[in-house]
Amino acid sequence: MKVLITGFTPFGGESLNPAYEAVKLLNNEIAGAEIVKAEIPTVFRESIKCLEEIIEKEKPDIAICIGQAGGRFEISIERIAINLDDARIPDNENNAPIDEVIFEDGENAYFAKLPIKAMVNEIIEEKIPAAVSNSAGTFVCNHLMYGLLYLIDKKYPNMKGGFIHVPFIPEQVVNKRNMAAMALDDIVKGLSCAIRAAVENDEDIKKTGGTIC
Amino acid sequence: MKVLITGFTPFGGESLNPAYEAVKLLNNEIAGAEIVKAEIPTVFRESIKCLEEIIEKEKPDIAICIGQAGGRFEISIERIAINLDDARIPDNENNAPIDEVIFEDGENAYFAKLPIKAMVNEIIEEKIPAAVSNSAGTFVCNHLMYGLLYLIDKKYPNMKGGFIHVPFIPEQVVNKRNMAAMALDDIVKGLSCAIRAAVENDEDIKKTGGTIC
Amino acid sequence: MKVLITGFTPFGGESLNPAYEAVKLLNNEIAGAEIVKAEIPTVFRESIKCLEEIIEKEKPDIAICIGQAGGRFEISIERIAINLDDARIPDNENNAPIDEVIFEDGENAYFAKLPIKAMVNEIIEEKIPAAVSNSAGTFVCNHLMYGLLYLIDKKYPNMKGGFIHVPFIPEQVVNKRNMAAMALDDIVKGLSCAIRAAVENDEDIKKTGGTIC
Amino acid sequence: MKVLITGFTPFGGESLNPAYEAVKLLNNEIAGAEIVKAEIPTVFRESIKCLEEIIEKEKPDIAICIGQAGGRFEISIERIAINLDDARIPDNENNAPIDEVIFEDGENAYFAKLPIKAMVNEIIEEKIPAAVSNSAGTFVCNHLMYGLLYLIDKKYPNMKGGFIHVPFIPEQVVNKRNMAAMALDDIVKGLSCAIRAAVENDEDIKKTGGTIC
Repeated sequence: MKVLITGFTPFGGESLNPAYEAVKLLNNEIAGAEIVKAEIPTVFRESIKCLEEIIEKEKPDIAICIGQAGGRFEISIERIAINLDDARIPDNENNAPIDEVIFEDGENAYFAKLPIKAMVNEIIEEKIPAAVSNSAGTFVCNHLMYGLLYLIDKKYPNMKGGFIHVPFIPEQVVNKRNMAAMALDDIVKGLSCAIRAAVENDEDIKKTGGTIC
Repeated sequence: MKVLITGFTPFGGESLNPAYEAVKLLNNEIAGAEIVKAEIPTVFRESIKCLEEIIEKEKPDIAICIGQAGGRFEISIERIAINLDDARIPDNENNAPIDEVIFEDGENAYFAKLPIKAMVNEIIEEKIPAAVSNSAGTFVCNHLMYGLLYLIDKKYPNMKGGFIHVPFIPEQVVNKRNMAAMALDDIVKGLSCAIRAAVENDEDIKKTGGTIC
Repeated sequence: MKVLITGFTPFGGESLNPAYEAVKLLNNEIAGAEIVKAEIPTVFRESIKCLEEIIEKEKPDIAICIGQAGGRFEISIERIAINLDDARIPDNENNAPIDEVIFEDGENAYFAKLPIKAMVNEIIEEKIPAAVSNSAGTFVCNHLMYGLLYLIDKKYPNMKGGFIHVPFIPEQVVNKRNMAAMALDDIVKGLSCAIRAAVENDEDIKKTGGTIC
Repeated sequence: MKVLITGFTPFGGESLNPAYEAVKLLNNEIAGAEIVKAEIPTVFRESIKCLEEIIEKEKPDIAICIGQAGGRFEISIERIAINLDDARIPDNENNAPIDEVIFEDGENAYFAKLPIKAMVNEIIEEKIPAAVSNSAGTFVCNHLMYGLLYLIDKKYPNMKGGFIHVPFIPEQVVNKRNMAAMALDDIVKGLSCAIRAAVENDEDIKKTGGTIC
């Protein structure tokens, strides 16, 4: 089995992106699966194009994109991506779309094709904070997740895929007061758990992961 | 023009629901439109059934459901509802569905049929905190919002509709430390602004309201 | 009985200070006591000098200074002031002392001479969030509170006094995300309760108001 | 030079205390100084008695007590301890004093006898979040810090000393939503930096570390 794991380039004034820093440190084999790693530009459109080229070349069984979620306290496994871009800040090529549809012929939203509850569970059993998230935002992270799930829907029906958001790492928050962070080492361990759960679970487990609002 | 505004019954151990408390205090006419008010049970399925009966009877031009979002700092206009129930706590009839589809023949998600940015803007101009939200959660609030938009999609294509979440009011947080609240009076003013914007704007305005994650 | 209530001028880029806005709206008589109101400059040294002149002129029985605590969720009754200035931002005259002693002949700290638990209780019974706070910071608020308690210690042993911090009001946070606020009307009600409790309680009540850290 | 470092026993329902977990992992020599380690019971009075016995036996040049500050985001170097116990929860022997003075003949408060700004600086240069804190609370942590500084004032004028609060570690927060944590490894590194700065700086550096409120 082959698993593609991508991480974004730094954005928003940060000098690194903990997503790609963690991806680089993953083992090349997890739960018997080969891990293929790639860096993706934090740019609308170009990110999806780049992802599609790698998928076309590597033909992975599972693709999981990783992004930075500054301010979140835990590793969050995203449940759904929506067909909409609404940029609060410009991306790395200075694009700032407002309320634009990503793919005219796409669904309003796509659910992750991953055992998200099993992934959360596996991370928590390693004693690392994790949770399901019900929104990947409306910036390039949601954009890429939507693009991946659109590609699965339209072109690669046998591929599985989804998105994971990771917190800032400590060095990013030394000058930000009261901002959550997670050690890079714990992010790497958490992502490894999530990948293992994705490789080993065809069906998701039944366990609440909802939020009231 | 007729506008239906609903508020939920109290849930989660609270003795009141600020959503319905605010609905009761709205004027019976806003921006020339007649305001029809209703209370909806915080119960999966029954909430949608109850809403449908009122819509069938009242034939409103616009329907906006209001719910409590404990912990949020501002009035939030919801952008999207997803086709999934995942209850972290039981509803008022002790139902606690996990990862269940709401309507088998519904879309994965529906976008609000409301000028959400114009509504946020109108509230902020009144100097009351407001924002677009990209997730209504996975409890009865999202459930009812999804049900409303499903009904619009399938049965009432000329109706507009969506969902607004409101914070706790101060009396709910006197025994909860560091928990946000908004005065009931400000919630009423904010909802009135939102309704006015919904009545007066056929098209939404172009203004960012996105989040990075 | 005469009670002096002061509020600061705006600082830190704000166009108003909710402390003085609330002070202006207080009744001129509370619990039978005459309320004397004054505005105090948000300036190290000058604030204490200004306060002392008013005390000298008015000879109040109780003096309570009110300040803005941006970010706090509740009205907080300060327990203690410390003999130290450490300015994170400049004051309104561009002073920014670092680790300077306020009065060389003062104690390291002074406890409020007010029934702080009774004051919290009275506010909460009005259903408005309130709490004891164990730090008034190291800016002009702590400076003035320390100055008041130093004056009580050295010159006015029969006077009572202390400090209350109030949250932002909603209009201050419409452009700050996830920032707590309290309606001005609730701040006024809360301060009135606090003043009544200060007038009516010679001894404080025995009720926990501590924090673990 | 000899440095005594203490950590508390677990309390408040936790199965471990990150303070003592970190203390155990410190090197036995830091910046040329011998490190002596001790565990202190989370109990009013007994904690101070225990600390005094160790000081009497070990005669350290510097004593730094470490405690858990659940909810804080960074390592915090405490600036001041106050002469007051006010327990929000019972200690490990079920004592819950309310507004009790710690030592009748003590000052209202004592400032840490440590170069606190230099300590914060050294930790931040290691890229680990740190800050000065202006309140150690009113529970056993403040109690022990006050006791230590009282002993320095009354009996050991040549000893230096103070208190450091550390965040939860990740395994403590997997079942607490939106709760800050810091990797144990980073806490150990941060404490080592703080100890080095305490050993190497006779005078503190001049750098703001204040808070507005």
